[in-house]
Amino acid sequence: MKQNVLSKMGRRTGVPPISWLMQTALTRPKLISLAAGFTDNSTLPVEISRKLLNEILSSPKTGQPALQYGITAGEMNLRLLTAKHLQKLDGGYDRAHSPEHVIITGGSQQLLYMTLEALCDEGDIILVEDPTYFVFLSILQSRGIKARGVKLEPDGIDLIYLEQVLERLKKSGELRRVKALYLVTYFQNPTGATTSLAKKSAALKLLKKFERAAGHPIYLLEDAAYRELSFASTPSPRPNGERAGVRGFEFETKGLLTPTLSSVGGGEGENIPPTALTLPGAAERVIYTGTYSKPYAPGARVGFGILPEPLFTTVQRIKGNHDFGTANLLQQLLAGALSSGLYDQHVAKVQKNYARKARVMKQALAEHFPANVEIWESGGGLYFWARLPKHISAGVKSKVFQSALKADVLYVPGELCYADDPSRTKPDNEMRISFGSANEENIRKGITRLGKVLKKFLQPA
Amino acid sequence: MKQNVLSKMGRRTGVPPISWLMQTALTRPKLISLAAGFTDNSTLPVEISRKLLNEILSSPKTGQPALQYGITAGEMNLRLLTAKHLQKLDGGYDRAHSPEHVIITGGSQQLLYMTLEALCDEGDIILVEDPTYFVFLSILQSRGIKARGVKLEPDGIDLIYLEQVLERLKKSGELRRVKALYLVTYFQNPTGATTSLAKKSAALKLLKKFERAAGHPIYLLEDAAYRELSFASTPSPRPNGERAGVRGFEFETKGLLTPTLSSVGGGEGENIPPTALTLPGAAERVIYTGTYSKPYAPGARVGFGILPEPLFTTVQRIKGNHDFGTANLLQQLLAGALSSGLYDQHVAKVQKNYARKARVMKQALAEHFPANVEIWESGGGLYFWARLPKHISAGVKSKVFQSALKADVLYVPGELCYADDPSRTKPDNEMRISFGSANEENIRKGITRLGKVLKKFLQPA
Repeated sequence: MKQNVLSKMGRRTGVPPISWLMQTALTRPKLISLAAGFTDNSTLPVEISRKLLNEILSSPKTGQPALQYGITAGEMNLRLLTAKHLQKLDGGYDRAHSPEHVIITGGSQQLLYMTLEALCDEGDIILVEDPTYFVFLSILQSRGIKARGVKLEPDGIDLIYLEQVLERLKKSGELRRVKALYLVTYFQNPTGATTSLAKKSAALKLLKKFERAAGHPIYLLEDAAYRELSFASTPSPRPNGERAGVRGFEFETKGLLTPTLSSVGGGEGENIPPTALTLPGAAERVIYTGTYSKPYAPGARVGFGILPEPLFTTVQRIKGNHDFGTANLLQQLLAGALSSGLYDQHVAKVQKNYARKARVMKQALAEHFPANVEIWESGGGLYFWARLPKHISAGVKSKVFQSALKADVLYVPGELCYADDPSRTKPDNEMRISFGSANEENIRKGITRLGKVLKKFLQPA
Repeated sequence: MKQNVLSKMGRRTGVPPISWLMQTALTRPKLISLAAGFTDNSTLPVEISRKLLNEILSSPKTGQPALQYGITAGEMNLRLLTAKHLQKLDGGYDRAHSPEHVIITGGSQQLLYMTLEALCDEGDIILVEDPTYFVFLSILQSRGIKARGVKLEPDGIDLIYLEQVLERLKKSGELRRVKALYLVTYFQNPTGATTSLAKKSAALKLLKKFERAAGHPIYLLEDAAYRELSFASTPSPRPNGERAGVRGFEFETKGLLTPTLSSVGGGEGENIPPTALTLPGAAERVIYTGTYSKPYAPGARVGFGILPEPLFTTVQRIKGNHDFGTANLLQQLLAGALSSGLYDQHVAKVQKNYARKARVMKQALAEHFPANVEIWESGGGLYFWARLPKHISAGVKSKVFQSALKADVLYVPGELCYADDPSRTKPDNEMRISFGSANEENIRKGITRLGKVLKKFLQPA
């Protein structure tokens, strides 16, 4: 056969970097993985789900609809509950939270995928945080969509940098290819950064300003997957009567070896900023996606999006071709959890658990990491972000990564989270370190091992 | 804004024809729908699912993995059970049924979607049965893939027609764009036709013959979604001691008004033909998809595919970008049903129910339809296929369809199931009539109404 039978997309779609990491993990049974973005097994709502499913399936009246086909956009009941839930999280704001524009999806991942299908042709451009969620980058790469990185600061993207990128694209005639700015706005994957409302607002205005030159809308695509994994609801004791940090727990210094910790929780005091949906003009320009996977259960995969027209209609039609609607049984389970209040109770428990594990990891980092490592500390989510001095690589092929593997500890090399953007060199001196799935003992052990490896390669500052 | 912001695909993706039918149904509360391909509410496995989920979620040991992320290709246990299940259906044949090539998907619909993503660029060609499953046509249309129809007979496609189409495409230089032949091989949607093994074998050989000219493999994409909805396991009484037909029930003649019924069950005696996976060379050229949606529960949407390389790896990667794996909870539910034997018990019950409803519809068709309507009678599935005389339109805008609506009965106009193929005119004198979701009383009433409408427009032959 002379020709490759695969489509261009088929040929482009690469091995997901994370699957290689997972495979590696499987071949070393003693390895402690601080790489996976999995949620904690011990907090999964086993008993709540059993109870709710038992109720749903206790009679044909509720059981049959749960096992039947539904509507492509999702069950109206869950769409209503989702809109109400988001309104509550956004402090009652309801203008852009219309259930008619809510679509239920197989996790927020599917929403991201279908949104890109609806918006982008090969060669189009999406602006992304630099670094950003690597599976999003995989979708872009697979679909031949270009990514352009925008420098990320602890409170969100650098606005001056964003304006420069847009100006440059305008000058090069590429602005008409720019379709959206993608922001992971809460406890970002991978850095933990939370975007302030002020930055969301300024970004939305900037995009608007360039629309005339683009010839079409430029959307703000807000991915709030980690939004509910906040530590804010569980303040730890404040021994000195001081005002608590965003995270609600204090950092204990350990002398010279202490790495530099920067707070990246959002900079809005103890409050988590509202979504971009609350901003003027949001109903026309903000695409919002969230998920029940992370706060409730990844195995009962239900996510959702809120989309302006013409995107809502288009994504709904595309979903008709994908699967004509997410499994009703899972939708009913989530609707039951939300309407009974069990969801909120569960999330509070999950938040407490992650806050505790984050404290354990923070303590271990302070004890075992060299002083010249800069660490971003988040107010929620599953990750710490560590920056080694610039000349030290932490990439897949680096001595640091290979030594860590030999020491049976795995992290996600930061370089995997950077887009292929020719306008800058890809940093490779960073690590995403997760406390999501490891237990406290393994968090301590893992960080101890990693700290030892780092000390071999790094001189104290 | 001058430009449309949507992608080419976004702009192409049209309103699904069926959603318009569903909307219509909702606005007329007294309407009897013989249009929906829904399964029967009354047969949904409510109690079985309650029991199985209760077991899975009764302890953290089994409950936590069910609520956690899994592997993109699906849980190995379900992949094994699926391979074994297919081997059993294929009479023990196991060469092309390797669990390593099984991928678990969100219904077979998602498998079809991702397979087309992996195989086809805009402008590529897929050969389809004429008529075929209309949501498959929607995917093609949305992705800019051309469909070329191959005449369908009661036992599968017309092989001479297939060869002519391939020759024509070879001559026009388009053969290199042909990637696959798509066949719905069991109790086809919409006609009920079952493809004989002889025809599958001949089709596979024909495709192979044209591969050199194409420059790449041409796959046989076998969609077996309705395979397990067979009536064969429930033979009805044979009053005259005659050899029973494939369906196992006899047709009672009703004098002059009797329409012509053709059997389209497969022509293999009482046996359902095995899949194309059992043919020589299948492991390299057959893409197989099936589903647990129709036989078990659409609301617990789990389907699967068996794919040769390089398609398996490519589709797996694409699924990583879609949703990194179908919800584990649903996978565990199906694994539990299959391994406990409850699945087989349930399917036997479902088959009996549809066989009974098909008999009711057949009886009503014989009583109420005019004699000059040709009816295809299937050995399984959810549909009868009715052909009016050629000059009578049954299309969406036809007098027949509009009068049926006024008489509060809905069917799927056959024209919706034909590809946009410029090489022939689209027939519009056919109807897909489903006994899937209506109960026996409504089947009788619906067919009575439809028969009255038809008699207004058709003279007895």
